[in-house]
Amino acid sequence: MTLLTEPVVAPPSGLPPADPREHLTSPRTRAVLRIQNGMLTAARAHLAGRGFTELLPPVIGPVTDPGARGSKQVDVDFYGHRYKLMSSAILYKQASLLAFDRFFYVAPNVRLEPPATSSTSRHLVEFHQIDVEVAGADRQEILRIIEDLVKHVTRHVLDAFPAELALLGRDTAALAAALRGAFGHTTHRQAGERLRALGHDQSPDAEIDWEAEARLSRDHEQPFFVTGYPKGSRGFYDKEDPQQPGALRSFDLLAPEGYGELCSGSERENDYATVVSRMRETGENPAKYAWYLALMRQGLPASAGFGLGLERFTRYLAGLDEVWQASAFPKLPGVVSP
Amino acid sequence: MTLLTEPVVAPPSGLPPADPREHLTSPRTRAVLRIQNGMLTAARAHLAGRGFTELLPPVIGPVTDPGARGSKQVDVDFYGHRYKLMSSAILYKQASLLAFDRFFYVAPNVRLEPPATSSTSRHLVEFHQIDVEVAGADRQEILRIIEDLVKHVTRHVLDAFPAELALLGRDTAALAAALRGAFGHTTHRQAGERLRALGHDQSPDAEIDWEAEARLSRDHEQPFFVTGYPKGSRGFYDKEDPQQPGALRSFDLLAPEGYGELCSGSERENDYATVVSRMRETGENPAKYAWYLALMRQGLPASAGFGLGLERFTRYLAGLDEVWQASAFPKLPGVVSP
Repeated sequence: MTLLTEPVVAPPSGLPPADPREHLTSPRTRAVLRIQNGMLTAARAHLAGRGFTELLPPVIGPVTDPGARGSKQVDVDFYGHRYKLMSSAILYKQASLLAFDRFFYVAPNVRLEPPATSSTSRHLVEFHQIDVEVAGADRQEILRIIEDLVKHVTRHVLDAFPAELALLGRDTAALAAALRGAFGHTTHRQAGERLRALGHDQSPDAEIDWEAEARLSRDHEQPFFVTGYPKGSRGFYDKEDPQQPGALRSFDLLAPEGYGELCSGSERENDYATVVSRMRETGENPAKYAWYLALMRQGLPASAGFGLGLERFTRYLAGLDEVWQASAFPKLPGVVSP
Repeated sequence: MTLLTEPVVAPPSGLPPADPREHLTSPRTRAVLRIQNGMLTAARAHLAGRGFTELLPPVIGPVTDPGARGSKQVDVDFYGHRYKLMSSAILYKQASLLAFDRFFYVAPNVRLEPPATSSTSRHLVEFHQIDVEVAGADRQEILRIIEDLVKHVTRHVLDAFPAELALLGRDTAALAAALRGAFGHTTHRQAGERLRALGHDQSPDAEIDWEAEARLSRDHEQPFFVTGYPKGSRGFYDKEDPQQPGALRSFDLLAPEGYGELCSGSERENDYATVVSRMRETGENPAKYAWYLALMRQGLPASAGFGLGLERFTRYLAGLDEVWQASAFPKLPGVVSP
């Protein structure tokens, strides 16, 4: 089973092959999974070298992140109690600050996205995040950590996987361009103005939708940050900007070349009363979050952090048409598969 | 939050603290999680150096390992289809052989063990396995891979974490003894004879129970293999021994000092008709396993592999009373906790 001597299967598009054999035996799939393995190895070494401890996140719990917009949570029965599969590990990240000031997870997440999203090229039901959190950090420090991490992993992939990138037909000049100079920064407000100038009806109070993200993304040669999303668009754990009420101390990182969002994060809210009222504002019942609020009432450290979508990052670096090509056993919204 | 200057919290025993703050802020917990992080880093580097690719296993699927003895599987609703949380990744390991000859997962598993097992000191509902599989390998080759891996990780922990081991009160001489000479080998039959001689009523046709495992384990100074478990005691995917019908080409690795089982594995059955009849013998409906059997009918490589329980391995190396001490957010059978 060597990589480059086998016949190249035509790159699939749209839905994954009905037969997992076709996907798993494809030299393209092997190349992608090798690159992904190399990305994680490089990310782990980079973060370990900067004082981060890797922890293992839980898969189920009494409650999970309600901020996963539009997707359904998955119930599980835990000895007669209704638990959830993790949609993101954010609540555990804030709790883990009690043990470590700087840590990360490689966290599996499950979100039942609407079946319509199976054709966006960028939604998987099961996916992974490189989930980083830093006690006492502000947004500026976190953006620097992300930029260093993304550049380090990109450089490693360019250096270590030239044969795989060639097999996949990745434009490596475009990838190398991402390493030149600092990543761009724009605010949600500026991005909205730009989109409206382009004729896209972007509301100043809403998340930037996929189509608009892709449009912004195609205008860039480098990954770029969008900061200060409006309060209603994110979870109760993202901190409101005291200088700019209604905007959050949050951010996304978008890839260039039309690949769209790679990463989301924020400074976190850690004030008990504020979190409870933010929960109420967003229609969440604080009673559901008993263990988390009990910890917060006694004090959790201030922090900032992010989740970098591993399969989306793999899609971008490997230059894949579809995010499912970055998973050995992809699960698309509404599609029954192994 | 430095490690050794804080007041040492008395080592907890029995159930985990009701307040996760007590667990997460304990210098003992931090020491254990640092060691566990070091174990994974060492295991990953060791396996990567031997040609293994790390893959990410799924968390949910249409079907999971039915061989998790005594525990209940967890149902999830996947767009109207009944899926399962992975109790082990074995079916996906056999499928992944289509992509890579040598690979591993660090796989999260969920098993609803009977609430009575919350007091065994060695059962968690959520745990992780270092899950290794090798195409074309026989049992002898796999046992060598395990012994090399366990020794490498043990040596790394002794070298890199002396302060943490001291804080935990680990007897490092006992741990160093595990590195001297080759691991012992015994058969299930010999182990049964030994147990009966000690007055323990061990059936030749059954799994070795926890109490008996602990008894054997206390007799040893080094980890040791028990091979050839009887057919009825394991899943349909473990190969029957052609030289010894009724016994499997399977094995366990048991830790010394009373810590018991660390690891299970086997040569795998990959003959379609044999797997279908083994499923029927064990009361499994082959129709449930459609995707897996479709792959096997077209051909899956012969292989052997193992799953090394990460929290149990951590318990042994760190010298912990309870396996839940090896998890940041432990879930014990029947106990509601974050």
